[in-house]
Parts: sequence; structure tokens; C-alpha cells
Amino acid sequence: MRVGVLTGGSDCPGLNAVLRAIVRKGVQEYGDEFTGFRDGWRGVLRDETVPLDIRAVRGTLPRGGTILGSSRTNPLAQEDGADRVLGTLARHRLDALIVIGGTATLGAAARLAEDHGVPLVGVPKTIDNDIPLTDYTVGFDTAVGVATQAIDRLHTTAESHKRVLVVEVMGRSAGWIALHSGLAGGANCILIPEQPFNVEQVCEWVESRFRATYAPIVVIADSALPESGEITLHRGTTPLPSADPRARLSGVGEWLGREIERRTGKESRTTVLGHIQRGGAPSPFDRWLATRFGLHAIDAVHQGDWGSMTALQGTRITRVRLAEATSTLKTVDPSLYEEVGVFFG
Amino acid sequence: MRVGVLTGGSDCPGLNAVLRAIVRKGVQEYGDEFTGFRDGWRGVLRDETVPLDIRAVRGTLPRGGTILGSSRTNPLAQEDGADRVLGTLARHRLDALIVIGGTATLGAAARLAEDHGVPLVGVPKTIDNDIPLTDYTVGFDTAVGVATQAIDRLHTTAESHKRVLVVEVMGRSAGWIALHSGLAGGANCILIPEQPFNVEQVCEWVESRFRATYAPIVVIADSALPESGEITLHRGTTPLPSADPRARLSGVGEWLGREIERRTGKESRTTVLGHIQRGGAPSPFDRWLATRFGLHAIDAVHQGDWGSMTALQGTRITRVRLAEATSTLKTVDPSLYEEVGVFFG
Amino acid sequence: MRVGVLTGGSDCPGLNAVLRAIVRKGVQEYGDEFTGFRDGWRGVLRDETVPLDIRAVRGTLPRGGTILGSSRTNPLAQEDGADRVLGTLARHRLDALIVIGGTATLGAAARLAEDHGVPLVGVPKTIDNDIPLTDYTVGFDTAVGVATQAIDRLHTTAESHKRVLVVEVMGRSAGWIALHSGLAGGANCILIPEQPFNVEQVCEWVESRFRATYAPIVVIADSALPESGEITLHRGTTPLPSADPRARLSGVGEWLGREIERRTGKESRTTVLGHIQRGGAPSPFDRWLATRFGLHAIDAVHQGDWGSMTALQGTRITRVRLAEATSTLKTVDPSLYEEVGVFFG
Amino acid sequence: MRVGVLTGGSDCPGLNAVLRAIVRKGVQEYGDEFTGFRDGWRGVLRDETVPLDIRAVRGTLPRGGTILGSSRTNPLAQEDGADRVLGTLARHRLDALIVIGGTATLGAAARLAEDHGVPLVGVPKTIDNDIPLTDYTVGFDTAVGVATQAIDRLHTTAESHKRVLVVEVMGRSAGWIALHSGLAGGANCILIPEQPFNVEQVCEWVESRFRATYAPIVVIADSALPESGEITLHRGTTPLPSADPRARLSGVGEWLGREIERRTGKESRTTVLGHIQRGGAPSPFDRWLATRFGLHAIDAVHQGDWGSMTALQGTRITRVRLAEATSTLKTVDPSLYEEVGVFFG
Repeated sequence: MRVGVLTGGSDCPGLNAVLRAIVRKGVQEYGDEFTGFRDGWRGVLRDETVPLDIRAVRGTLPRGGTILGSSRTNPLAQEDGADRVLGTLARHRLDALIVIGGTATLGAAARLAEDHGVPLVGVPKTIDNDIPLTDYTVGFDTAVGVATQAIDRLHTTAESHKRVLVVEVMGRSAGWIALHSGLAGGANCILIPEQPFNVEQVCEWVESRFRATYAPIVVIADSALPESGEITLHRGTTPLPSADPRARLSGVGEWLGREIERRTGKESRTTVLGHIQRGGAPSPFDRWLATRFGLHAIDAVHQGDWGSMTALQGTRITRVRLAEATSTLKTVDPSLYEEVGVFFG
Repeated sequence: MRVGVLTGGSDCPGLNAVLRAIVRKGVQEYGDEFTGFRDGWRGVLRDETVPLDIRAVRGTLPRGGTILGSSRTNPLAQEDGADRVLGTLARHRLDALIVIGGTATLGAAARLAEDHGVPLVGVPKTIDNDIPLTDYTVGFDTAVGVATQAIDRLHTTAESHKRVLVVEVMGRSAGWIALHSGLAGGANCILIPEQPFNVEQVCEWVESRFRATYAPIVVIADSALPESGEITLHRGTTPLPSADPRARLSGVGEWLGREIERRTGKESRTTVLGHIQRGGAPSPFDRWLATRFGLHAIDAVHQGDWGSMTALQGTRITRVRLAEATSTLKTVDPSLYEEVGVFFG
Repeated sequence: MRVGVLTGGSDCPGLNAVLRAIVRKGVQEYGDEFTGFRDGWRGVLRDETVPLDIRAVRGTLPRGGTILGSSRTNPLAQEDGADRVLGTLARHRLDALIVIGGTATLGAAARLAEDHGVPLVGVPKTIDNDIPLTDYTVGFDTAVGVATQAIDRLHTTAESHKRVLVVEVMGRSAGWIALHSGLAGGANCILIPEQPFNVEQVCEWVESRFRATYAPIVVIADSALPESGEITLHRGTTPLPSADPRARLSGVGEWLGREIERRTGKESRTTVLGHIQRGGAPSPFDRWLATRFGLHAIDAVHQGDWGSMTALQGTRITRVRLAEATSTLKTVDPSLYEEVGVFFG
Repeated sequence: MRVGVLTGGSDCPGLNAVLRAIVRKGVQEYGDEFTGFRDGWRGVLRDETVPLDIRAVRGTLPRGGTILGSSRTNPLAQEDGADRVLGTLARHRLDALIVIGGTATLGAAARLAEDHGVPLVGVPKTIDNDIPLTDYTVGFDTAVGVATQAIDRLHTTAESHKRVLVVEVMGRSAGWIALHSGLAGGANCILIPEQPFNVEQVCEWVESRFRATYAPIVVIADSALPESGEITLHRGTTPLPSADPRARLSGVGEWLGREIERRTGKESRTTVLGHIQRGGAPSPFDRWLATRFGLHAIDAVHQGDWGSMTALQGTRITRVRLAEATSTLKTVDPSLYEEVGVFFG
């Protein structure tokens, strides 16, 4: 078969491992030929391709990023998007398309498969781990590893200087990275978007930690929100100019650090981990997951299971429907959050 | 409640994280008091204890090993073993025992619970990942990480010198570490005890890899075996003095390296990773798993679910019966091994 | 002898390794007794001590931070400071004091030794590496390692998204961390406080890098400054409210990222590494340096070489005068900066 | 100018960083053209070349190994070797040759320069750090890092099981890796080839360590030797068949582990680190050193400083004579070994 492949959305570790597995199995077991599209859906719309054969994927298993490039282009944002996608596939005589991406990229894929009959299968990747029906997404374990290592390092500074250290981690709409890295890093408080936090409560945890002679580490997802009243309360002193939630949240870690300092009188420092969470060599778990997803995706292609997405369930790779997996976001369950609450304070 | 805790068998990363979670939740949520037993079952038989309170577990989350010590003592190897266990529990007025261990340690626990009414629950740990009914055991992810990092490093030597590099990893009776680290490390051939290997086939993979201009890495579990005939064939030149399988297997990596060199004429080097696979800081995944196992184990104690073992199924922590989980070993399924065979050669 | 020890200034990896070496050699070879002062000079002024014996330092070699705590208290900032220092030493009948710190901590030590006859020796530590007369200070190599690892991770994001990535590293008044990590991380441009930078030139390098099909990484020390005219030029659009240089510089990485984006039209992201640069396990080099400094400091005490500081010169540990080592800062030599300029753009 | 480059001897981390620096500066500042020789001196003898331009070295800074390949071929081992070297240089119209290697590779270079007028300069690399007149060689810091990380991991196993752990590290003829990693890893005893060891003394250290409630780690260079009498004593039980020193030393770590177990009755395990010490990404220090050596080597070429070798002295890159740097080996000074002896036992 002739198969197109693209990687879309923010980059994350493990994308190349997916590509390598697809190509290795496709070429060796099925005799497939591959066409890589440059920069996600944009490359399909513009018909920009990248060579994708065994030579191209050699040595890429431990490399972060994606040899195909990526973008956040949504092919359905333009009226003739679906037609242009179909046109490009036809021009290259492609029998199928494998789409590796997060919710947005795969959401477009779901609609193209369902509404426009594009013969495609999906592979879920995002450091945010917010795609339902799969235990984990490619990239998440690596991001948790980077964040945990950073938290490990910050403990010594917190303790040597009796400071509060606030660590802002990524998590656009779900607190998975915060929850896992906070727990693994021994944070004294973890704040996630699923559970608006009470600054007063956070300050109590901080002070209780100081009484236990250790210094606190507070891990906060960059999309976590204080309970509503408090935002109004502090809008005066802290510049929170916009009603747009995204603008408001930018810098929530810095904001919280200042609030803690103001309320408790304890010196506080904020670290924003930023893009180091999505770069670099994938963890062994992510290489394993990415590789198996790639192997199963090419199988799905050969079975014509259009509109399906590879998923991890326990230790098995299964398939779910893209439409279902992109219809909602997987967020942290309240009972799980409560479970780890025993370590707060 | 008054709860005893022990860690048995070979040490592995994450044991302290289990202890910390048990104690944090037990003390804070249930008001429990804990007694740690020194060096696994041996400490119960000899009534040797170690203080185990919140102070003792503080700061231990990222530390490898076990603050309780460990041993391979089997309490049922001596006739009055069960009575002595019950005696020690009575002497300390313990209401329950939490046993953290691998197949042997937990197997003894299963019989003590089933046959002698010892009120205990189990937590599975072993870098070998060979305990059934749980997706993973504590320590496995870290061991895979160490082995993968080593394989990553060996690639450059293989390629610069056009050598075959054989890497012997642990795996007493199951090939999990070899399979996962070999796949994550981009090995060109992975040999596991579940699938006796054919040296001729291995040499063909090695030579095919050289033709592709790269140098091969062969990952082999220390319990992997060549197909039967070959052992006899080479007993003459290689000192394989004993018919005891354990003795015979000691050094299978070295043996394979020499065989490859002899048959293909390619220079070969063997690296035996050894104990670095079971030491040091646990990976974030292991800290997460260990912590959740600990939290759930103390819940099981308070629910009087004697003879149960915490288990990971997908992302949920469940409970299974110790007797069932220790009645067999979880080995690598042939279909999984076949799945990754696409990367051989 | 009876010897007091303190660690002052910002914490950094390797402090515990210095303490361990002092105590091991002092106790075993000289029969010394030690008193640790809590939180740097503050503990001496307030007479707050911490036990410091072989038991206290055991296992601390790989631990970041300082078991003594630290502070930025300057004992000479108060009129009777020197008297209080002498009073505390007399009260504990201490024959000597070992002061481990950066320029400020050691500067106070120099004056106490020279002007007030305090019998002390110094050990230089600071991630900034800005103390003269020693090749390196304790903590620097670890900080460079953390920054380099972060830059390694950011390359993949830069390339996958064709973005400019600006990395702000520490370096209060010298560009050593920026220079070493930028070179080791393969940055395309390194900006240090010793060399005011020209934003136009930076943008040219950025664009030349894109033409070479790779995406640029810009490493900037948090104290680096653009050439003077430009600050005025852009004060209008970017809020730079204060004339105080420290305030102005806060966020120079963010400022530069926006400038590059504005001028070149290329998407840009800034990562501020912050406190992870000064925490966590020391690198092997720092453990080696810290240990040898500790061993030589206790020798200096027994030789009564008051007012001296341990220093690294090549592979030898020597002694220099504290007064001289704290009279100026060691900055990056223009010829060295020029040497690495071949990699810019 | 037209410049040939080769990398010889065992591979080590940082070789590509040297190549990258040579090419970047040569092309950009001097307008040079480069020819890479495949597999060290062998490629010169056989006239086998590899493209070496800016494109070839791009992205190689963090990669271990060498893109040129390496071998241990000695060009002077064959009678017409010098002539063939000169012939190859003439055939490619090369004005100079840069030789990157250890003692053997550079020793041949020294003689070719001195006796045969080959216009060449040298760059010292070897994880063994045994080349005189330079503080460090390329690759050493990375090897120490790998060994230290392994020792860090082994501490937990030693302590959990109260075992002696023997770690055999590389060091063909000098104990530098053992000394630095042993000190940085907190070993309780370090055995190097420069100081024949007394097994009785080692056992005393081991037992004293157990009395202090910790378990011992013994670091031994693979070329370390027991004092003479002992070898004879134990030849009976341990197969030490050959009088050839190299054969005898193979496995000295295993031998020592068994001796300790036999004499003290304490369980002992040996880990042989092997080739992971010479593979993988170079440390930041090695990237810095390698890069600066490369920049200075191409300067030396343009100054016609034939027969010179780049060297590190303090923080400065200097030049020394290849003939002098290869006339002897740099071994560990007795006073330095004595200095760290305070940590033994």
C-alpha cells in the first residue's frame, strides 16, 4: 500500500519512534511505500512532502521532536480543507493516511474520516495525557520525568533557604503532569485545573510544612485556577487585565508565589519549567509505547480500520474510535486527586 | 491499628516509596502505629525491628534500597516458621502485616495467610516484572531505564569500531527487562528465556546489520538459553561444567559473544550490567506505582482483606489474591515477542 | 582543635561534600571537634549551632543543598558584628572557623580575618564561578550540566516548530554559565553581561540559522544587557519601569524573545531555567573539587594559614589570600568570548 | 588550506565535538577544505576517506563515538608505513593532518612528524586520562560520570543486603577513572595500578565499614594488581593460567570479590562496568574541552606548528610537543592517592 504520515500539534518526545515503527513494519512486512507530510496538516493542504523510508528513520528512536516537522494547522478551518486533503492523497495515489497528534489534530482526523471518507487511522500523542480511552499518550511519561527531575533538584534549595518553591508545569486543560510529577517529586501540594484551589488552604499547607522543619514545594499546572472569589479580590494589586481565561492563567505560578509570600511572609520563588518538558530523548516507556502504537497503526491500515485510534489499555494495544476519543478531554478524576491529598501539607 | 511491615527478596528501587505511603496514610488517616521488621522474614523470625514512623520515612521517596533491609529468608523453610511468625506478631500485638516482596517472599505470605491465618496483605515488587495479575511490579520501570541508558551508550562504541556488542541484562525467569530495554534501546536482536534462541539465526541478524552499515547490539536476558543441541556442541571448548541450569546460564552473554565472534569473524564485546539495574533512585513511574500501592495496601489492611495483593490494571489499583499471584510466573507472551521481531536484524 | 564551620550565600551543589571532607579528615587525622553554625553568618551572630560530626555528614556526598542551612546575612552590616563573631567563637572555645561561601560571604570573612584577627580560612563556592584566582568554584560544573541538559532538550522543539528558543540562565555578574552551557549545548548565540549585545546582530544570527534549515537557540545570562541605545528605544512598548539596573534586567530573556519575534517575524519562546540550576546532586567534578577543597581547608586550619582560601589551579589545590580573591569578580575574558563566536549564527 | 583529519584508538565521547569545532572554524574563518580518513591510521594507509564538511558535523556535538570511525592500526608497524602516509597526503594535496587519539595514535603521529616531516598536529583524547602535559584528555570526564552514576546506584544494594560491592572500572595503565569516580561515588576503598594493593588491608577496610553499619563499595581499576606474593598464593584455586600480565589482570574485580568473600565471610558481588564508560553523549565539560581543542588545533595548523599537541593547563588551551606528551604515561601521583586515603574504610 501507499501510505501518507503526518505529525501534528505541539511536538513531544516519541514522535520519531512512532514513525520508525510504522516504516520498519510497513516496509518489511507489508511492502508499503510511505510519504511524509511536512509540518502536520499544513503539509497536506500545501502538498509539501518529506522522504520517509527506512533510511530516513534510522537512528531516530532516541531523538526528540519529529523529523517531519509539525504545526497546529487545522485543515477544516478553511472551507475547501477536506477537498484539498483528498486532492493531495489522490495526487500521491495514497491508500491511507496515518495521523499522529493530540486532541486538535486527531479531532480533525475524526471528522475527515467520518464526514469525508478519508481512509485514515490515528495515534495519540501529547505530553498532557488528556486523550480519553487510552491509559497514556506518547510523550507524557517523558514530560513527567523532566518535571520530576526538576522538582528533585528544587528540594535542596527549598530546604537550605527555608523558602517556598512554586513549580509551574504544563497541562493545558488537565492536571496529569502536575499530579504525577508532584507525587513522584514529593511535592507538598499539587494544584490542577480540575480542582479550583483555595489560596488560604495552600498557605496553611505551606505553614504546616515549615513547622515540620522542611520547606514546601508547590506544584501547579499552568492552567490551574484559584476559586473564583479570590481572583476578584486580588485583581487590584496583580495585573490580571483580561477576562480571557488563557490570558488570565498565563503566569499563575508567579501569581501564586507572590500570594503565598504576601500572606505567609515566607520567601517564595517560582520556577516555570516551560518547553524543556516537551523536548529531548523520550523515556524508555515512551519509546516502548510509541513503537507499539506505530506497529499497531500500520496493522490497522492494512485491515482498513478507518477512523480508529491506537490505544493502550493495561499492557495491551487496542483500538478505539477517533470520534469518541476526541469528543471530550480526559481529566483527573476527583477520587484520584483525593487519594494523593494525604501528602499535602 | 498496629501494623508490621517488611521488605523481602532482592532490593529494588521504590521500596522506600511504598513504606512512606503506607506510613503517611496509616498515621494521618487511620491513626495507625507501625513496626518495621529488619531484613525481611528473617527479622520476623528473630524478632528484630526497626523504627517506622513519619520521621523515619521522610525524604526517602527518591532513595533506592530499603530502610528496613532485606533478605531471602523463607519463613516456611523451618518447621516452626509459621508459629514463630505468629509469635512475633502476638508479642508486638500487631493486628496486621504488610509484606512487600517478589514471588518467593509473597509466596510465603500467601501460605501464611491461607494456611495459618496470618492477617497480612502483599505488595508486589521485583525488577523482573514476573508476577501475574498486575501490569507492572515496583522496580521494573527503573531497571528498564538503567538498561536502556546503557544500551544507548553502547551504540556509539558499536558503530565507531564496527563491533558486535552483547548486553546481558537481568531477568531470572522472564525476559521483560530484555524485551523492554532492547526495544527502547534499539537493539537488533533480543534473546529471552521464554524463547530458546538459535545461534545461527543470531549470527545472520548480526551480519545483516553490518551489511546495512550499522553495528549490531544484541540484548540477552541472563537466563536465556540456546536451543538444546548447541549447548552440547560447544561444551568442549567452553567450560560449562555443571548440568545445573543456573550454573550453566551464568555468563550466557559472554558465551554468546564468543560464539558470534567465532562464527562470524566479527569482533565482539559483552557487557554484563549486573546490580546497577536494581539500585539507585526510582523512576517517576516507579515512585507513582509504589506510592499508590502503599496507599492501597493500608486501605486493604483496614478492610481486613487478608491474603490480598495490590495490583495495577491499566491506571487503576485493584486487589488480587496472593495465592493466585504467586502460583505461577508471568512470562513474555509469544505473540508479544513476535510483534517486536520486526526490529531484529 | 575546635573548629567552627558555616555555609553562606545562595545554596549550591557540593556544599555537603565540602563539609564531609572537612569532618572526615579533621576527626580521623587531626582529632578535631566541629561546631556547625546554622544559616551562615546569621548563626554565628545569633549563636545558633548544628551538630557536625562524622555521623552528621554520612551519606551527604551526593546530596545538594547544605545540612547547615544558609543565609545572606552580612556580619559586618551591623556595628558590633565583628565583636559578636569573636564572642561566639570564644563562647564555644573555637580555635578556628571555616567559611564556605561566595564573594559576599568570603568578602566578610576576608575583613574579619584582616581587620579583626578572626582565625579563619575560606572555601569558594558559587554556581556563578565569578571568584578570581581559582579555576573553578564548587557548584559551577553542576549548574552548567543542568543548563546544558535543558538546552539539549530544547533543540528538538526549536527544530520541530521552526521557532527561536531563548534560554535564560543564571549569572549574577559574569557570563560563565551562559558561556559554558551555551557552547556545550550548541547554542547559536550566547549573550553575557561582559559584552553588551546588539539586538540587530542577534536577529541576523537568528535569520542566518533559519536559512541553514535549523532553528536557533539563544542562550542569555540573566544579567546580560543590550547596548545602551536600544533600551531607550524600546522602553515605550515593553514595560521597563525602573532605572534600577537589577529591576531592569529581571526578565531580559522574555524581553529578548519578544524583540526577536517583533523584528524577525519568527515565533519565539523563552525558557527561564531558574533555581533548578542550583539544586540537586552535584556532578562528579563538583564532588571531587568540593572534597579536595574540604581536605585542604582543614590542613590550612592546622597550619594556621588565616585569611587564606583554597583554590584550584590546574589539577592542584593551592591557597590564595581571601582579601585578594574577594577584591574583584572574575569575568569572561573578551578573547575567550571571541573564540567561541565562531559558532554564532 | 587542505586539511586531513583522523580519529584513532578506542572511541570515546567528545570526538565528534572536536571534529565539529575544527571544521566550523576552518571553513568559516580560514576557508579550509577537509578530508576525513576512515577508521584512524588505517584509512590513511588504505586511502579511505569520508566527507567532512559543515553539513557532516552538524548536530554531532552531543553524539558519542566518531563519525569517521576508528581503529588501533599503527602506521609504523609496517615498513613502508610512513611513505604510504606521505603518499596519501600528497594524493589528496593535503597541507596538514590533524590526528585525534590516545597515546598509541599520537605516538605514531609524533614519530611521523619528527622523523618523516609529516605536517601534523595532535589532539589528546582517552577516557584513561593518561597523557602527560595536559590536565585532562577528551572523554575522561564523561567516563568518570558514567562510573560515578553506577556507584551511586550500587550503594543502595550494598546497604539493603549488607553486601560488599566491587566495581571494576576501566584504566588501562593509570587509575584516574577509579580515583575520580571512587572519590565522587563515596567508595570505601579505591585500588589503582600505581599502588599494588594488599588484600588483607582491603578486607580490614571492608570489615571496619560494616562495623560502622554501612556496607562497603570497593572501586578497582581493571589493571590494578595485588602485591606480588598473593598472586602465587591464590593461583591454585583461581584459574590464572598465563604469566602474561594482561591475561592475568582480566577479571581482577571478580577475583577480588571472591577473595573478600573467602576471607571475611561477607557476601560479595562484582560489577564490571565495561564499555558503557566509553559510549554515549559527552558531558558538558568534555564538549567544552573537545570544542576548544578543535578550535586551537586548526589555529596550530595555520601557524604551521607541526608536531604540537593541544593541551589544557588550568583554564587555558596551550600547546606542547607530541613527542614529549607520548614519551611516558601520566599516572596517579602517590601524594594524591594518599590524600584521598582518608575516606578508605
